[in-house]
Amino acid sequence: MTIRVAVAGASGYAGGEILRLLLGHPRLRSGDLEIGALTAGGNAGSSLGTQHPHLLPLADRILQETTPETLAGHDVVFLGLPHGQSAEIANALPPTTIVVDCGADFRLHDAADWAQYYGGEHAGTWPYGLPELPGNREVLAAAARIAVPGCYPTVSILALRPAMAAGLIEPHVTVVAVSGTSGAGRSPKVDLLASEVIGSARAYGVGGVHRHTPEISQALSVAANLPVTVSFTPVLVPTSRGILATCTAKTTASADEVRAVYDKAYADEPFVHLLPEGQLPATGTVIGSNAVTLQVAVDERAGTLVVVGAIDNLAKGTGGAAVQSMNLALGWDETEGLSTVGVAP
Amino acid sequence: MTIRVAVAGASGYAGGEILRLLLGHPRLRSGDLEIGALTAGGNAGSSLGTQHPHLLPLADRILQETTPETLAGHDVVFLGLPHGQSAEIANALPPTTIVVDCGADFRLHDAADWAQYYGGEHAGTWPYGLPELPGNREVLAAAARIAVPGCYPTVSILALRPAMAAGLIEPHVTVVAVSGTSGAGRSPKVDLLASEVIGSARAYGVGGVHRHTPEISQALSVAANLPVTVSFTPVLVPTSRGILATCTAKTTASADEVRAVYDKAYADEPFVHLLPEGQLPATGTVIGSNAVTLQVAVDERAGTLVVVGAIDNLAKGTGGAAVQSMNLALGWDETEGLSTVGVAP
Amino acid sequence: MTIRVAVAGASGYAGGEILRLLLGHPRLRSGDLEIGALTAGGNAGSSLGTQHPHLLPLADRILQETTPETLAGHDVVFLGLPHGQSAEIANALPPTTIVVDCGADFRLHDAADWAQYYGGEHAGTWPYGLPELPGNREVLAAAARIAVPGCYPTVSILALRPAMAAGLIEPHVTVVAVSGTSGAGRSPKVDLLASEVIGSARAYGVGGVHRHTPEISQALSVAANLPVTVSFTPVLVPTSRGILATCTAKTTASADEVRAVYDKAYADEPFVHLLPEGQLPATGTVIGSNAVTLQVAVDERAGTLVVVGAIDNLAKGTGGAAVQSMNLALGWDETEGLSTVGVAP
Amino acid sequence: MTIRVAVAGASGYAGGEILRLLLGHPRLRSGDLEIGALTAGGNAGSSLGTQHPHLLPLADRILQETTPETLAGHDVVFLGLPHGQSAEIANALPPTTIVVDCGADFRLHDAADWAQYYGGEHAGTWPYGLPELPGNREVLAAAARIAVPGCYPTVSILALRPAMAAGLIEPHVTVVAVSGTSGAGRSPKVDLLASEVIGSARAYGVGGVHRHTPEISQALSVAANLPVTVSFTPVLVPTSRGILATCTAKTTASADEVRAVYDKAYADEPFVHLLPEGQLPATGTVIGSNAVTLQVAVDERAGTLVVVGAIDNLAKGTGGAAVQSMNLALGWDETEGLSTVGVAP
Repeated sequence: MTIRVAVAGASGYAGGEILRLLLGHPRLRSGDLEIGALTAGGNAGSSLGTQHPHLLPLADRILQETTPETLAGHDVVFLGLPHGQSAEIANALPPTTIVVDCGADFRLHDAADWAQYYGGEHAGTWPYGLPELPGNREVLAAAARIAVPGCYPTVSILALRPAMAAGLIEPHVTVVAVSGTSGAGRSPKVDLLASEVIGSARAYGVGGVHRHTPEISQALSVAANLPVTVSFTPVLVPTSRGILATCTAKTTASADEVRAVYDKAYADEPFVHLLPEGQLPATGTVIGSNAVTLQVAVDERAGTLVVVGAIDNLAKGTGGAAVQSMNLALGWDETEGLSTVGVAP
Repeated sequence: MTIRVAVAGASGYAGGEILRLLLGHPRLRSGDLEIGALTAGGNAGSSLGTQHPHLLPLADRILQETTPETLAGHDVVFLGLPHGQSAEIANALPPTTIVVDCGADFRLHDAADWAQYYGGEHAGTWPYGLPELPGNREVLAAAARIAVPGCYPTVSILALRPAMAAGLIEPHVTVVAVSGTSGAGRSPKVDLLASEVIGSARAYGVGGVHRHTPEISQALSVAANLPVTVSFTPVLVPTSRGILATCTAKTTASADEVRAVYDKAYADEPFVHLLPEGQLPATGTVIGSNAVTLQVAVDERAGTLVVVGAIDNLAKGTGGAAVQSMNLALGWDETEGLSTVGVAP
Repeated sequence: MTIRVAVAGASGYAGGEILRLLLGHPRLRSGDLEIGALTAGGNAGSSLGTQHPHLLPLADRILQETTPETLAGHDVVFLGLPHGQSAEIANALPPTTIVVDCGADFRLHDAADWAQYYGGEHAGTWPYGLPELPGNREVLAAAARIAVPGCYPTVSILALRPAMAAGLIEPHVTVVAVSGTSGAGRSPKVDLLASEVIGSARAYGVGGVHRHTPEISQALSVAANLPVTVSFTPVLVPTSRGILATCTAKTTASADEVRAVYDKAYADEPFVHLLPEGQLPATGTVIGSNAVTLQVAVDERAGTLVVVGAIDNLAKGTGGAAVQSMNLALGWDETEGLSTVGVAP
Repeated sequence: MTIRVAVAGASGYAGGEILRLLLGHPRLRSGDLEIGALTAGGNAGSSLGTQHPHLLPLADRILQETTPETLAGHDVVFLGLPHGQSAEIANALPPTTIVVDCGADFRLHDAADWAQYYGGEHAGTWPYGLPELPGNREVLAAAARIAVPGCYPTVSILALRPAMAAGLIEPHVTVVAVSGTSGAGRSPKVDLLASEVIGSARAYGVGGVHRHTPEISQALSVAANLPVTVSFTPVLVPTSRGILATCTAKTTASADEVRAVYDKAYADEPFVHLLPEGQLPATGTVIGSNAVTLQVAVDERAGTLVVVGAIDNLAKGTGGAAVQSMNLALGWDETEGLSTVGVAP
């Protein structure tokens, strides 16, 4: 049986990344997987080659409108839509269709968080597409609806969760994460123009107002089994891809204790790598890959744990997590079509 | 039978790129291919993870010294060595070992060209690892010694050859090619520091003194069957990868004539893509891929043909060509482990 | 008497650069110069601080609408408007007001060129704000209407004119010029987003269709006293500022002859610098400055002259030329408020 | 009387920046200031034009050896030397010579801090060239020996000091500061190559081991009048210049209280600007300028104050502070030759 996959929002960066990964998926070559409808909003009617010239094998595909009809008849539907648009589409698809949503609509547990950070009515909560959370692989294997985590939460949660779960840090964390611009999407805005971004670094969403804040807090609170406050600041830097998160919390643990906890937490994870001592994560080493690289350090003078993590925001931070989740939901090996080899330098 | 591959100069950018591609090669997963010795010069003794942190699956491998002994016992040996060092190593390896040299030593036909541009004694001429040249696939299929083309020549030759072979342009061409810094290698030099490169564009090797000039001239002269002069200027720009070559020559041909010639020349080529009219090559679309994208235009006012071509200098420009050549020499499908899908944006 | 200056289009990059230079002009400090109305189109009503946060001393200024009324009562009016909008505004200002137009409207001599490259009716021809052309300083000193040259023409003309005027090169030239993105202006467009530009180089306007082509041809034809054809290709690279032009033409002259001609041509020019032999122009060395750096080389093998030139497209390429022209028109020292010192690295 | 200035370490980035600023200093044009000896280590004997091609007016100057003899006979000597080399040179100069040291040697109060972070014997403590600290202008006006602050401490201290002095935050702060590469100096190192830096962000000195940590702690402890612990993490991003510091601390203060304190603290400071609400600092707006831009926010959910600050690390972070300090020591207006206008975009 051939699994037929559709991508809604195929002209955006999330959609493009999912297609990039699917084109390298071994199940595509073996015929187990087939790329069906590619849909878009304003770009419907144009060829994929004009939108994503890097996807040469699909260059002649014409983008269709994003509607329940064009998305019908697929086994898997990836959604790369603006926040708030996923529910209506998902509800119109059969419950057996595996829907993998790259938007925020179904990530949060708490309707009040949704109302505060996104506004409007909370659509609900779907299984969270971060297989590295305890017990989550089983949930995803049985899921037909999956909410792909936000890019900042992915790396922040993976960086802090082991220490939080082990009770090594206080339930207040500070995350400052630098990111390339692709996370901001492909809509043309003056402040995302190359002229404005190149040669510059700037913070945004300062003061806890970035929408990924409650998502980080939610996962860490589960880990700690008590409320965790998160001071989160994103910083835009002149790269296209990559997030480097510097995560800090008060600790009295020793460096050895911390290292042992992280070693154990990620020993069997295919994509999360605690780097050898002395080696620090760099986003440039994970571009195009599904890897998460981490390093931990204890600052005894300041009494803090510092965990630094790097991911490709479009890969492990979005499209890679989407494909990883699809693999699990289809019962395939979780790592198929995903790599820990980055394109560097 | 498992093919055992060694990489000499594994800590450099060419060596790293070959390893990146081999790690994604389907024959590695199937067990037909095995990564053997990884050797280096000054970095021997260190782990590959400290040199190429993006190659996580090989992070623990220790780099050996580059000697005939460490390279012995392999079916394929890739050489990523400084110019002038390949001959001695190659001569010490059995004639049946497939040696794929990423250096310049065996690219030129003419000892006088070698003397003028590189100095010292000419080592000889090996089959040229550009399968897209007429008749070259057959040569490479039978070869045990292969000279991988230079990065600038790869794109310049592919951009101009069809017009030159068809007699559409005068035998004098102007090539101005912008390149990222990875083509300059990994030796620490002040003028390659990020601080010097970011925010700046600069020409180098101006006046026909760049060593790739005779290599371009050589291939185009064969195509034209008469001597072709090449005015070649490389320009360094702040990217890591990518070459965009703007190639100009006087013509009286029409745009349609030119387009027909290029369409025909590359219709069956898996990696060379003439883009649809109105779409222009960009290096950002071919990063990590083995694709060459081309566009042609006739400037009637100026009486010129302009061909623009884009490649990833480390992939199709070096490591990709090396793997493509290896595939041919081993009788495997030429495209195995190579992709036309870039990592973008 | 205090000269009162207005800037129309103050929220664009050209307008911002003029203001940056005026803020450093010694006549502002001495009280001879005063910054009057700042006007804009869609950004009227906002503060300059929100548009150009780098111009801190003017942060609280509110942008007015661009109308003849808001621009009235000034001694100098700089226009940084979209092509085609300057004539109407200029005609509504008194003939004694010095109007310095950064648009293309009044640069071309030939109405047919205008029609072919810009379309619509040709508005006329104003004195050309390139003081380095023979006899041009006198013209500008008496001018009340000045057309600032295009950024690509500025560097291309200065790079090729001496050789062309001396009859050292054939009347057909090839210019390939790499540029940062600021030359494309500040309108939000997908292909100018940082995500699309960073890590990529791409040509545009290939085949002689870029609007600066006839402007280069016009000036070189005057120098040669015969029609000069220009094959011009612009290439976008990931910097914000800077143009590096590689200019090539057939020659039989020797390197010494060429050098002597350029030495003489620019010996007394305050802003045009022929670099010492062996040193090549880099855009990174002229950022923020009004300098033009040049290097010449003769490629004997190819029979070509190669001249490489670097400018800051917003400074000498636009705003610097505008201020230089204003200085001349006001009878001030041409170099006041302008520098040959770049901000590097 | 003409003040004669020497720059030791003129081929480095700090030396180059001091020279860039001196070339724009109005006292140079008026004849009150004269640029004397320019000295270097390994680059002695070369022209300044080969080292700093952006300083065209000084291109022909030959770099001398850095010795007490070449530096003798100057009224002001700037030192841009590797850490540990300033004391010997300074001690050999007359006590009346104003020595402005851009190195770390004389910044710290505490010999134990020096020993822990730099090693070797502590050279002593000089007046700290941050005029914005209370009472510091008077000290600097009378000083003949001045220690220019580190780049990270400059922005971190200015960002946090008002809140700390007002008792609004707890005495434990977290600073994550992204920086361009120029702060790492001009020595060729593999990890500073453009190929390694472009497209990547990476933390370094993680865990409180960066040498600027005790310098930040020292100033904040004075402000708080009790020991302040600092968790400091620097992050390298692909720009040449610019530091953006995100500074976080626990607070119970309201946003209005905080804003009032910062408004008051910097109301009369010529170079420190609290931006209007809603506008965030970006390094791209302060390049080449001596400005410090700040924004404050209170995250009520997390109970933290977040202060974001931007500087040009080479200008206000090094060379600008050096010139500002010289101005004070000479009794000149502190702002001469320094600007709050950045080069943008």
